[in-house]
Amino acid sequence: MSAASLIFSCSMHVGVSHPKVAAKSSACCFINHPCRHLNSTSCGHSMVMEKSKLSHRGDEILCRAGAVQVESAPSFSVGQKFQLDDVIEAQQFDRESLNAIFEVARSMENIKSNSPASQMLKGYLMATLFYEPSTRTRLSFESAMKRLGGDVLTTENAREFSSAAKGETLEDTIRTVEGYSDIIVMRHFESGAARRAAATANIPVINAGDGPGQHPSQALLDVYTIEREIGKLDGIRVGLVGDLANGRTVRSLAYLLAKYQDVKFYFVSPNVVKMKDDIKDYLTSKGVEWEESSDLMEVASKCDVVYQTRIQKERFGEKIELYEEARGKYIVNQDVLKVMKKHAVVMHPLPRLDEITVDVDADPRAAYFRQAKNGLYIRMALLKVLLLGW
Amino acid sequence: MSAASLIFSCSMHVGVSHPKVAAKSSACCFINHPCRHLNSTSCGHSMVMEKSKLSHRGDEILCRAGAVQVESAPSFSVGQKFQLDDVIEAQQFDRESLNAIFEVARSMENIKSNSPASQMLKGYLMATLFYEPSTRTRLSFESAMKRLGGDVLTTENAREFSSAAKGETLEDTIRTVEGYSDIIVMRHFESGAARRAAATANIPVINAGDGPGQHPSQALLDVYTIEREIGKLDGIRVGLVGDLANGRTVRSLAYLLAKYQDVKFYFVSPNVVKMKDDIKDYLTSKGVEWEESSDLMEVASKCDVVYQTRIQKERFGEKIELYEEARGKYIVNQDVLKVMKKHAVVMHPLPRLDEITVDVDADPRAAYFRQAKNGLYIRMALLKVLLLGW
Amino acid sequence: MSAASLIFSCSMHVGVSHPKVAAKSSACCFINHPCRHLNSTSCGHSMVMEKSKLSHRGDEILCRAGAVQVESAPSFSVGQKFQLDDVIEAQQFDRESLNAIFEVARSMENIKSNSPASQMLKGYLMATLFYEPSTRTRLSFESAMKRLGGDVLTTENAREFSSAAKGETLEDTIRTVEGYSDIIVMRHFESGAARRAAATANIPVINAGDGPGQHPSQALLDVYTIEREIGKLDGIRVGLVGDLANGRTVRSLAYLLAKYQDVKFYFVSPNVVKMKDDIKDYLTSKGVEWEESSDLMEVASKCDVVYQTRIQKERFGEKIELYEEARGKYIVNQDVLKVMKKHAVVMHPLPRLDEITVDVDADPRAAYFRQAKNGLYIRMALLKVLLLGW
Repeated sequence: MSAASLIFSCSMHVGVSHPKVAAKSSACCFINHPCRHLNSTSCGHSMVMEKSKLSHRGDEILCRAGAVQVESAPSFSVGQKFQLDDVIEAQQFDRESLNAIFEVARSMENIKSNSPASQMLKGYLMATLFYEPSTRTRLSFESAMKRLGGDVLTTENAREFSSAAKGETLEDTIRTVEGYSDIIVMRHFESGAARRAAATANIPVINAGDGPGQHPSQALLDVYTIEREIGKLDGIRVGLVGDLANGRTVRSLAYLLAKYQDVKFYFVSPNVVKMKDDIKDYLTSKGVEWEESSDLMEVASKCDVVYQTRIQKERFGEKIELYEEARGKYIVNQDVLKVMKKHAVVMHPLPRLDEITVDVDADPRAAYFRQAKNGLYIRMALLKVLLLGW
Repeated sequence: MSAASLIFSCSMHVGVSHPKVAAKSSACCFINHPCRHLNSTSCGHSMVMEKSKLSHRGDEILCRAGAVQVESAPSFSVGQKFQLDDVIEAQQFDRESLNAIFEVARSMENIKSNSPASQMLKGYLMATLFYEPSTRTRLSFESAMKRLGGDVLTTENAREFSSAAKGETLEDTIRTVEGYSDIIVMRHFESGAARRAAATANIPVINAGDGPGQHPSQALLDVYTIEREIGKLDGIRVGLVGDLANGRTVRSLAYLLAKYQDVKFYFVSPNVVKMKDDIKDYLTSKGVEWEESSDLMEVASKCDVVYQTRIQKERFGEKIELYEEARGKYIVNQDVLKVMKKHAVVMHPLPRLDEITVDVDADPRAAYFRQAKNGLYIRMALLKVLLLGW
Repeated sequence: MSAASLIFSCSMHVGVSHPKVAAKSSACCFINHPCRHLNSTSCGHSMVMEKSKLSHRGDEILCRAGAVQVESAPSFSVGQKFQLDDVIEAQQFDRESLNAIFEVARSMENIKSNSPASQMLKGYLMATLFYEPSTRTRLSFESAMKRLGGDVLTTENAREFSSAAKGETLEDTIRTVEGYSDIIVMRHFESGAARRAAATANIPVINAGDGPGQHPSQALLDVYTIEREIGKLDGIRVGLVGDLANGRTVRSLAYLLAKYQDVKFYFVSPNVVKMKDDIKDYLTSKGVEWEESSDLMEVASKCDVVYQTRIQKERFGEKIELYEEARGKYIVNQDVLKVMKKHAVVMHPLPRLDEITVDVDADPRAAYFRQAKNGLYIRMALLKVLLLGW
């Protein structure tokens, strides 16, 4: 995904009434959708439903949508908000939609074992269609589905569906898999694959990472974690540390936090992996303050969030000495903890190597394992909203 | 599987009373079988039960069986029919048994989410024992099991059980896995493996493809789809197109449709992959009309079903130019649609390459994705009948 | 694991009150633990709980523990016994704890499908974190979990979590996975990995094999099978046959049976794979009789249990002729059966090659498939005790 599209292609569905659910209600579905029965006489020849295309009008558009005729567990209803059909990229979300998702995620934290809420997705099947393995992400989504009473069809070798030898298109695969399941969580090696899948499918699609492209549930859990840990998103000071050039995580985070008031960023990174101009320009255009610094201690002393990232060795190719130099430069350790504010937190998308020393783990400000756990709640929330509505 | 066995080894159990269930009721079972309690005192030393062998008497034998003492969800009972212990090959089935299975499959289409019927296999465990990966088939079976409330143990690397290094026999593997599950769905690379597994197991076995041999659930779903789409099986005209030499799909389909009245076949294929003599001879011996044609348009204009297949590149080895020539010869596209009857359908076992152009998909007569979905209903029906009886 | 640690590092928790459950009750858990609500206000910043370390005081220490405040399905309660937090090695268990586990395992054999007992682990999620594939063991654990109403997150490619490329520590992986699940069943290629995982996790860990180290559920099911088949453990005569040098199975079995009265061992093995001195010395030190023999027929005629094992080809490297000689030397066949006592049994950890001939299978004394099935009951018992308490 180019910088331009990252910045300007924010998409929300405006004034449309749940095209996926509408499509599902008139297609010849199988079991699971509450809306299915509305139109269940059309089962002779199936109709290929036209999906309303995603509208791209920039990120300032207010998101409203028509009434959604989906049963929704009352205790999790937060009113009829905008429509969420698929989760494809961080740019779909604005402040309002983020808040709505976070509200659902918070309710997920309180679900008791074997309570009615823990069964809200009973009877629903999620297909994890992974074209490349990503065990951590897969387990997180599958745990989310099962924690809500749903079940899962798993594949980590989805490339076989469309192997060069057999040559099936992604679109054909999606049409087959949507016959077996109610929602597809897809990981793919090609940027844009999730959008193509969503354009084909009559059931919701969640992008669990498409190559160098997007990984929106990671972006959401990062923002959610900051709000949970700091208690607010307006007015925060955020230090982004480490590999700022290649990490889609920090780029998405900068993009999303720019939607809040009076946020200031500090970029602390080795020269070879500095934050790129597209994000800097975008922040400037939005009136968001940022500065670059080479002094991690000073930044750490000012920030609410120190967001550390792994220097990605695989990006350096044969320039191992450059990697080694970059890697050792900014380490979060006890010295950094000492200067950090009492309420501040250290975050990291994991996995980590030694860019955060192990002795940091015991400090209450080490938020990275809680952050990983928040991924569960965010994914529970996304599954709930996509399958049951708000 | 040789032509001779394909044609003459039709097997149905005649006048026997559910040998697998009988065996299970006296073996030291674990949880799941309704019959288990009948004889549950024999749990000291387990008895190795003799399984009644499959009887092979040709395909004209009427299938009757004694009473089956199995609980059966009343709404799905279709009376006490013949006995179904395992699903090993298309030739097991005659017209009567196909109809009975299709009746169950139709009832599966109407199961509502979270209805009692959607839980009929609750407490049952299916082991998908795949010695070679086949994601599509596996997901279809696993979806079928879960749509009925059952659960699944998955393995796509079953070769490890019996790796050359360790050298365990298939029979030993089956005896272990049957201790963990209630039904085995097996994919194997060797023809005949499913029959060996069924001969060993005291629980039902479904063949999900054994090398160049059989893939009976695919054969069933093809016939089921024709009946659902055309409304009848007697008197139909069927064009089989593409790779008729290597495709087990079209061979099984020709075999099964020969059981119906006044069916006529048209074979349309490149010279290098023509329908083999065994099937032609068999059809002739059954009084079924067939003819070969090189004119797809003319055939398409007459047929109720145009069954397209993929030319299998892997069969051509280094003769790539032969493959390329064969591949482009008969394409189903808008021109073909134009001459087809209004009620006729295009079918394909999937995956497809370009032997059906993508612009055909939107036509209501494009039945191939519905066909894939029908695989779900057929597999639900097989699981139901094998585990609960009729 | 060195011989010394195998023999002397027996660990049981003495006088401590369920440190894992205590930890869980005050950590910010998600759904599943009955104890979770006790302390559910501490969800702001999570506290890293100190786990009480395993105490190592030799194998004679009596195992008692404080009261466990866990809900337990009444019919499976066997009183408040000692505490079981993790299952790491065979040496944790003494006679009393083995008996307690076997009592639970026996109750597992009688659970009826869809009975309340078959749902006792509903709402619990088990993560099978396998760093190397072991399909048999994995399916057995997953079947155990599902037979009790629980669900499973599966991974057989857990090495990706901590690949050399990314370099995550096992500890970090465990901290992530424990956020998604309620119990971890781990297979690892390094001896000691399970102990490290258990020391990190705030949820129970079961060792499903760690390299050349331990595989405690196999050891338990072996002893359980002897008790079920022979009716007692005191006073038995046990012939260990085959590869006694490399098999962790027979070594663990000798270790555990030494806890019973008047047990005598016969070691029958090719010279190249004889029982090592550490076990012989240990048995002697415990006053357990043993002798070596090269006469399988004579040993078989005296024993209650003939425990055959596979000669592991992979241990012989290029010395194939040594392997072939060792392999053919001691075969259990009809001749051996003829001299065996009527009540005696043949056992084998599986997979077998030809060290037991197939014609032995039909004999009621062939216990090896029942032994495999007993693995299911033992694993059900372990899951029940670890998650619900006694």
